[in-house]
Amino acid sequence: MDFSLSEEQQAIFDMAHAFGQEAIAPHARAWEAAGTIPRDLWPRVADLGLGGLYVAEDYGGAGLGRLDGTLVFEALAMACPAVASFLSIHNMCAAMVDRYGNDALRARWLPDLCALRKVASYCLTEPGSGSDAAALRTRAARGAGGDYRLDGTKAFISGGGYSDVYLVMARTGGEGPRGISALLVEAGAPGLSFGAAEDKMGWRAQPTAQVQFDDCATPAENLLGQEGRGFSYAMAGLDGGRLNIAASALGGAQAAFDRTRAYMADRRAFGQALDQFQALQFRLADCEVRLQSARVFLRQAAWKLDTGAPDATTFCAMAKLYVTDAAFEVANQCLQLHGGYGYLADYGIEKIVRDLRVHQILEGTNEIMRVITARALLAETP
Amino acid sequence: MDFSLSEEQQAIFDMAHAFGQEAIAPHARAWEAAGTIPRDLWPRVADLGLGGLYVAEDYGGAGLGRLDGTLVFEALAMACPAVASFLSIHNMCAAMVDRYGNDALRARWLPDLCALRKVASYCLTEPGSGSDAAALRTRAARGAGGDYRLDGTKAFISGGGYSDVYLVMARTGGEGPRGISALLVEAGAPGLSFGAAEDKMGWRAQPTAQVQFDDCATPAENLLGQEGRGFSYAMAGLDGGRLNIAASALGGAQAAFDRTRAYMADRRAFGQALDQFQALQFRLADCEVRLQSARVFLRQAAWKLDTGAPDATTFCAMAKLYVTDAAFEVANQCLQLHGGYGYLADYGIEKIVRDLRVHQILEGTNEIMRVITARALLAETP
Amino acid sequence: MDFSLSEEQQAIFDMAHAFGQEAIAPHARAWEAAGTIPRDLWPRVADLGLGGLYVAEDYGGAGLGRLDGTLVFEALAMACPAVASFLSIHNMCAAMVDRYGNDALRARWLPDLCALRKVASYCLTEPGSGSDAAALRTRAARGAGGDYRLDGTKAFISGGGYSDVYLVMARTGGEGPRGISALLVEAGAPGLSFGAAEDKMGWRAQPTAQVQFDDCATPAENLLGQEGRGFSYAMAGLDGGRLNIAASALGGAQAAFDRTRAYMADRRAFGQALDQFQALQFRLADCEVRLQSARVFLRQAAWKLDTGAPDATTFCAMAKLYVTDAAFEVANQCLQLHGGYGYLADYGIEKIVRDLRVHQILEGTNEIMRVITARALLAETP
Amino acid sequence: MDFSLSEEQQAIFDMAHAFGQEAIAPHARAWEAAGTIPRDLWPRVADLGLGGLYVAEDYGGAGLGRLDGTLVFEALAMACPAVASFLSIHNMCAAMVDRYGNDALRARWLPDLCALRKVASYCLTEPGSGSDAAALRTRAARGAGGDYRLDGTKAFISGGGYSDVYLVMARTGGEGPRGISALLVEAGAPGLSFGAAEDKMGWRAQPTAQVQFDDCATPAENLLGQEGRGFSYAMAGLDGGRLNIAASALGGAQAAFDRTRAYMADRRAFGQALDQFQALQFRLADCEVRLQSARVFLRQAAWKLDTGAPDATTFCAMAKLYVTDAAFEVANQCLQLHGGYGYLADYGIEKIVRDLRVHQILEGTNEIMRVITARALLAETP
Repeated sequence: MDFSLSEEQQAIFDMAHAFGQEAIAPHARAWEAAGTIPRDLWPRVADLGLGGLYVAEDYGGAGLGRLDGTLVFEALAMACPAVASFLSIHNMCAAMVDRYGNDALRARWLPDLCALRKVASYCLTEPGSGSDAAALRTRAARGAGGDYRLDGTKAFISGGGYSDVYLVMARTGGEGPRGISALLVEAGAPGLSFGAAEDKMGWRAQPTAQVQFDDCATPAENLLGQEGRGFSYAMAGLDGGRLNIAASALGGAQAAFDRTRAYMADRRAFGQALDQFQALQFRLADCEVRLQSARVFLRQAAWKLDTGAPDATTFCAMAKLYVTDAAFEVANQCLQLHGGYGYLADYGIEKIVRDLRVHQILEGTNEIMRVITARALLAETP
Repeated sequence: MDFSLSEEQQAIFDMAHAFGQEAIAPHARAWEAAGTIPRDLWPRVADLGLGGLYVAEDYGGAGLGRLDGTLVFEALAMACPAVASFLSIHNMCAAMVDRYGNDALRARWLPDLCALRKVASYCLTEPGSGSDAAALRTRAARGAGGDYRLDGTKAFISGGGYSDVYLVMARTGGEGPRGISALLVEAGAPGLSFGAAEDKMGWRAQPTAQVQFDDCATPAENLLGQEGRGFSYAMAGLDGGRLNIAASALGGAQAAFDRTRAYMADRRAFGQALDQFQALQFRLADCEVRLQSARVFLRQAAWKLDTGAPDATTFCAMAKLYVTDAAFEVANQCLQLHGGYGYLADYGIEKIVRDLRVHQILEGTNEIMRVITARALLAETP
Repeated sequence: MDFSLSEEQQAIFDMAHAFGQEAIAPHARAWEAAGTIPRDLWPRVADLGLGGLYVAEDYGGAGLGRLDGTLVFEALAMACPAVASFLSIHNMCAAMVDRYGNDALRARWLPDLCALRKVASYCLTEPGSGSDAAALRTRAARGAGGDYRLDGTKAFISGGGYSDVYLVMARTGGEGPRGISALLVEAGAPGLSFGAAEDKMGWRAQPTAQVQFDDCATPAENLLGQEGRGFSYAMAGLDGGRLNIAASALGGAQAAFDRTRAYMADRRAFGQALDQFQALQFRLADCEVRLQSARVFLRQAAWKLDTGAPDATTFCAMAKLYVTDAAFEVANQCLQLHGGYGYLADYGIEKIVRDLRVHQILEGTNEIMRVITARALLAETP
Repeated sequence: MDFSLSEEQQAIFDMAHAFGQEAIAPHARAWEAAGTIPRDLWPRVADLGLGGLYVAEDYGGAGLGRLDGTLVFEALAMACPAVASFLSIHNMCAAMVDRYGNDALRARWLPDLCALRKVASYCLTEPGSGSDAAALRTRAARGAGGDYRLDGTKAFISGGGYSDVYLVMARTGGEGPRGISALLVEAGAPGLSFGAAEDKMGWRAQPTAQVQFDDCATPAENLLGQEGRGFSYAMAGLDGGRLNIAASALGGAQAAFDRTRAYMADRRAFGQALDQFQALQFRLADCEVRLQSARVFLRQAAWKLDTGAPDATTFCAMAKLYVTDAAFEVANQCLQLHGGYGYLADYGIEKIVRDLRVHQILEGTNEIMRVITARALLAETP
């Protein structure tokens, strides 16, 4: 066993961390207030190779693995979990195009995606579905001209109305998961519209909206892979998506924790620094244990996905569950340790608490993670 | 023992609940967005007798007890915890004026306070103190004209810049708790100014700001009770304040829970209503146990305060700790049970989570509640 | 509302506590080692009126209510939870005879039961059932002579092979709860035998064994109430049984906590008494909050049962869940606070932990308590 | 990073597991009842190379690393945590002799220790110390003949009165940690005696007793390393000791969990197997997450110790804390999932709960682990 990052991995982490601290952190609160991420951030992100992390290098990708990716998102999330997570969704889309698209599709889209000239959003969830993704009702039928015509509504779409291209799961066949296909729909497509920006607890830097398809046309060549395989692509993409949601949560919690330690060393009450109170020291110790156990558990899951371990899906689900719960609890504890200041936006802690809250829900709620884990356990009960 | 509310108590609860649902709940989100509570609410509140709950009836008060008060704030908080809590602070100030003020002071202020023609704010905490309230540094010295001249800054003041009168703890003597006096300072007093409105995680309907005294003059007759006794008044007021902070948290959590049960009965996934999933039913059961045990524990503490039980302070501290922790956990669980919708402002759950978060911090952090409880335990160890 | 015990109730508690400390506590460890409770204890218990707590006074009972009963068992359990719980089972049986038996049955049995000349055991659970009590398979058929002939096996029977009379739930009719009747079977009845004494984690002072019926005859007049109603009697008895299981757990935990505080005041490490370490003080505070909230929640449930509140069953279930979980956690925390000494039998803490563990399982597991609570919640969802 | 065991490591685990299942598991309950481990087990253990796991091969040791060792103890503890832990203590002693002893001492003792012809016990804790080990009071003074004469008492000694040699920390100099030396004392030494066997909650297969020195003589050559360095040797040994205590806890919990899954697949209630109830499935999932995260966190700590990472001590402390807490909670949950059967000795779960309880206390309580962790955090706060 070897629990050390390679030099290259450490360099990736350091690079992403430095970039986040320099280019994102100083603006995180302003972007949250504005409810959007400035577009001029993306070329800088792409320059670092973070636009197509898992995409093969022939089309401009970085060709990195899942473990490498968790390092990037943990490091970026130390500046802002909402921005880091937004970028992770784009990367999930790009990875799906790279992995499942045919050569034409890859050639058409990957250079723009990797360069972040086009930002991608992922459209799976619907108002009537949620954890029960296979129940989706958006339809895509072949139109007269051979293109696909989409009808339906997607909910909670990060980047809805902001992104340049939408990777949409739509029903081209009968009920159930096998009737679903994956299609790219470009911004500006006829019949594509967006709901009002959602007012959310956190992740407020990310514009989120419903994405509506009203006889919306997209060319037949925008089909990803084969008709009827979309749900299997989506499910395969979830393992990596869960790792990144977890990694972003971890980075946010780590940032809150680092700030809290500095605060407690500085702040005094009853004649001594806060970090000299034993009961509070025990809280710090518990946070550290949570963060460190979460980190190694996450990296193990990523390694399993990278190495094709048969239990990779279960470990990704468990890591998502454990890490996002731990991260929220640590951030929430950090707020408490700040006392009243933790409740004020100025101190930057309450934003992390609000941002991290959704990590326990997204990419499959943590209840669904338990379902997945239990199912795997039962399947192998002697 | 008798665990039933009297008919009169039930009527008080019902009245407050009905008023909250009619006059506050429909506007709670708008008031949060506006960052303030419209002034025309207050006469309606006063008409119901809620402006001077604990004030003797001779000056317009309702002459109710602490247990009655918890019913009012639990019921109101089912509409909006931030509005209910704001009103509870005003009532704490009015009760202090009634209890510790001399006849002249009572006659001068109580009619206006009870009628909510004047809204009062409580100024104890400072930027450099917090849980360590006795360390406060705001000074009040006798000026040439016999009035008090205040210098210093108060932090996290609910109603700062909004209220009509401020009940200020200031140092008139030497160090420590015995050098502190309580003074009323009216809005408009020379040398009184306010910081910018604080940007907070929740309680956003309440305007919160620093209150700054720069050679600020207040008449000598605005001294509450005796010089040097202010800290003991403040501490005595905290027992009731903690009950109300707890009661408001409980009402918020109950509202979130009621809404969640309705949501889960309605919302379907994987072919059945959410409330048919056993694992989620267990969560509901755990929430109900938390809420019901919190409620009876709170009412016991209030009864102890009403009846002058020697352990009332400890029970108020324990109730504040238990109830506010339980309330936040229940509300946060309700958010989770709503899935992605819980994260959206439209569903009203995330606001309750944000509002309730500060109840674990205010009126003495829950860490301080543990200190108080442990101190009492040690004092009586055989 | 009134949260104070009456003078009479306080006297009951004090009497039971004093008796437990004098007559039980000094022997608790020896009785555990012996695996039995000496029979000469029972007349002394009966002299105090604790043999028929809920039985009407005309047949020698004390005519007390359920709330009174919880005081008795909390107080006795401070000496030994296993002995207190054993007595509570006897009282449950006596109460059922009093409530559901006809006059002849009452006259025949109650004087002996109240005087503890006969100790009663309760036989519901079977090896193949458990929480699913209605699935029981022990049969009772009318024999040629008009008596009942029982066949089957009961499991986990406290007092199996020790008690003088067994209150047995047996199937006299078809499947389901309506086919079940309640019968008294006296020790020495033909066809009555017992399994080996069970080796258990705790409750070791109580002899526990399977009770086996092999064409076992009991007279027809030993039928309790009506044929086919036994399960409803059993269920009705459970509310009170759960209160007492909870009360016994609470008393055990309180004893562990009192002992721990004394230990920590005495024991020194790193130059100061253990109870001077703030992190450990916080643990004490959390234990106190748990114990006090559990106590008032338990008494509220008992009051609801006494006053016939429509939600009494749900509150008894919730109290059983909350109190027994809290009690185990407190006792287990007390063990930890004792360090290595907590693990040694000499200090009396580990026995309480072992004893209390079964309170989370008995009289319906705490999982079943959640099922009951959730069912009530769903039934009243708007 | 590489999270896979090497083939050799997997073989070590498999060998230890198979041996445990064949030679220990069938007897675990009988050995517990007997309160001792039969001596004829040891040659078989030694044949597998488990008598000197960390001892260099020149004296008969296996020359394995700390990570390898955790595999051995996790695997053995799946048969019996008490036996596995007992062996781990012997190995800690052997490793200390190997690492700190001079050549003569190594030659004299290591062959016997590795062959388990002599079983070693570790004597650090005293009745008056505990977590505060440096406060120990046992004295060792040079006698007339040049040998050491020991006076004092050691408490909680696993193998007290059973083992062949005792590695004793005794004060040869002044107060504080620098006055302490490590000495071997052989069974039969004059002045060496033992207290009565301790009656404990668990670890009952291990004979535990006080070890008493009354002018007890041991030859000067039995000094380990240098005078005055004993405490530093003891502290250095603790890192590995904590790993093994954690590994043994993990193995016990894993065994309880495996058994519980099989039980729940088999046992039916309300018409279906227990493992089909969703609320119970969620419990299983949570247990699995706890076990898997604990396992990888433990192995990371062992790897850090093997590779000399500067934060190895902190990670060993955190792993001990996290793993032993998780293991107890999982085992305790398994008991609950067994219902009443979990409370019976026949099912083997309650023994594991009792055994694992002390892992949270031994080798430094989990409170001390928090102290260590917090101290490291504070030392590196920016």
